[in-house]
Amino acid sequence: MALKATIVVGNPKPKSRTLKVAETLIEKLLAPGSYELEIIDLADHAAEIFAWPSEKMAALNNRVAESDLAVFASPTYKASYTGLLKAFLDRYPMNGLTGVTAIPVHTGGDLTHAMGPTVNLAPLLVELGAVVPGRGFYFVADQMDRLDEAVAQAAAEYTANLTRLAQVATATASLSTPVA
Amino acid sequence: MALKATIVVGNPKPKSRTLKVAETLIEKLLAPGSYELEIIDLADHAAEIFAWPSEKMAALNNRVAESDLAVFASPTYKASYTGLLKAFLDRYPMNGLTGVTAIPVHTGGDLTHAMGPTVNLAPLLVELGAVVPGRGFYFVADQMDRLDEAVAQAAAEYTANLTRLAQVATATASLSTPVA
Amino acid sequence: MALKATIVVGNPKPKSRTLKVAETLIEKLLAPGSYELEIIDLADHAAEIFAWPSEKMAALNNRVAESDLAVFASPTYKASYTGLLKAFLDRYPMNGLTGVTAIPVHTGGDLTHAMGPTVNLAPLLVELGAVVPGRGFYFVADQMDRLDEAVAQAAAEYTANLTRLAQVATATASLSTPVA
Amino acid sequence: MALKATIVVGNPKPKSRTLKVAETLIEKLLAPGSYELEIIDLADHAAEIFAWPSEKMAALNNRVAESDLAVFASPTYKASYTGLLKAFLDRYPMNGLTGVTAIPVHTGGDLTHAMGPTVNLAPLLVELGAVVPGRGFYFVADQMDRLDEAVAQAAAEYTANLTRLAQVATATASLSTPVA
Repeated sequence: MALKATIVVGNPKPKSRTLKVAETLIEKLLAPGSYELEIIDLADHAAEIFAWPSEKMAALNNRVAESDLAVFASPTYKASYTGLLKAFLDRYPMNGLTGVTAIPVHTGGDLTHAMGPTVNLAPLLVELGAVVPGRGFYFVADQMDRLDEAVAQAAAEYTANLTRLAQVATATASLSTPVA
Repeated sequence: MALKATIVVGNPKPKSRTLKVAETLIEKLLAPGSYELEIIDLADHAAEIFAWPSEKMAALNNRVAESDLAVFASPTYKASYTGLLKAFLDRYPMNGLTGVTAIPVHTGGDLTHAMGPTVNLAPLLVELGAVVPGRGFYFVADQMDRLDEAVAQAAAEYTANLTRLAQVATATASLSTPVA
Repeated sequence: MALKATIVVGNPKPKSRTLKVAETLIEKLLAPGSYELEIIDLADHAAEIFAWPSEKMAALNNRVAESDLAVFASPTYKASYTGLLKAFLDRYPMNGLTGVTAIPVHTGGDLTHAMGPTVNLAPLLVELGAVVPGRGFYFVADQMDRLDEAVAQAAAEYTANLTRLAQVATATASLSTPVA
Repeated sequence: MALKATIVVGNPKPKSRTLKVAETLIEKLLAPGSYELEIIDLADHAAEIFAWPSEKMAALNNRVAESDLAVFASPTYKASYTGLLKAFLDRYPMNGLTGVTAIPVHTGGDLTHAMGPTVNLAPLLVELGAVVPGRGFYFVADQMDRLDEAVAQAAAEYTANLTRLAQVATATASLSTPVA
């Protein structure tokens, strides 16, 4: 069965470089044909992001929550994720992203805010019940010619981390095996 | 092959309740007989923690780094992990905990600093290359009669998270399979 | 000349208890008659918060930036400030709150996220150039009968902090005195 | 009366560039002759930092707590302050730095961890009751030829911030004036 992958982009401007970074990360991380990808560009939904209730927004929230893997990508605004991304995540109830493997991605002008995805976005996703398989990924937005190389390195790290986690999972999962 | 599990306790006082919390977490998380456990109570090593070089400290650091699963447990000092724990972690080179699945644990007097393991200790472990499979675990230290219940709930959450991560790992790992 | 004080409330619901907490803080902190107060309830502006450009939003941003003292108050959403408040702050250019003394306030259901205003909202305000004169203020929202007492204590602490800062200011300000 | 200024350096190696950065900051921030300066290089006290009780350490802690202005300077270890500095701060009781104006300083190899003093060290000092008059100061350690320029800019910002805070202090202090 295909893995369900989702990209959520928190840039108020649509079709941003931040989206491109997230797409490249998914391409490097997952084997072609092994997954279905949905892209949610929040710039397309800003007008409805504070509407409550909203069937349309609820449907978007649900599709992300049902993902196996989700990349949450935001430009750096004030050293952190955007209000647009936070407003989308605020719509979830407690533990709304339980079961989702989530990768936090920030883009920025230079390295000054490189800690952002690890210290700001990762704890937010974890608070919602998601699991973050390693460091957040930060990319200096005007180095798009180095994108493939940087993303390949990050993807290799996530893959190695996930493989190790799978080994630990085997030991813990045995707990739930009923004793005959 | 047995899983290698390690507990690192950052309490300057030995044999603390913080150690007891970490031990209980390992017991609930891993199946009996499936793992080897080593306990490093940093209170026993405070006199040498700033010695450089130190064969003894290097050996301790190495054993943690070779663990499959490590619980890093600290009482809450000034809303964060102790200086003793940080001093031990400072001895690692960059990415010194790569490949380790790490669970951050804080104990404290009440809920005021409950965010500590998630916003302070987890990012520190991630910076060292470890992967944290979910929220940090915070336990109010004078509720030891509720320890089993609270730990069982946390362990169930980590187990569920690890199981999901293993599923994602399958999809990413396939990337490295050579196409015949 | 009267001090210019502003309250910015990031609750998507208008006239919230969070607003009441902020108002009480201003009342306890400043002497009656010594200040002019403006209240910006962002719930009233959610529809325009992502509009760009927007004369109305720019006017709001400017009035906060020209304040001597501003209270930024948010309910706790996902252990942090709301996306609505972040979206408002995202509209500022770099250093857009320079010269503003800012007090971060979070309300929440219990103490679990009490660190929020200090570790999440305060660094955000500081990133914008504001100065935060002490800890963030966290208030458990269903203890409104204890509001006066809790706010009085916080206000006394801010006042003491500001008085001390004024003493240090005297020493540093002398640097800019031309030598005759 | 002279301002009491203190520098606390958390580098396990004595006489570090981190100390030099802190000294330069004090020189740019305070007028010559307006202050007394004490320097506490924690490298000289590492052997006793976990001793409890310790008259010598208590005396050091007290002198910092009695300072009007204190610079806490640390090299970046694992994206944060050192365990040595944290161990020193851990010795304080709750609110042990009340009344101290504190400036957090980190040095590091490049900009990757530039957020450290603002998101890690500043909240720690605030937790102890200190007030941080603005952003943390981060300095790339191998740019010592640019030290004067960078420090002068930071000092000017702190001075401007303190001057503004003094104005707000005047309004709040009036609260305690008895009505005739």
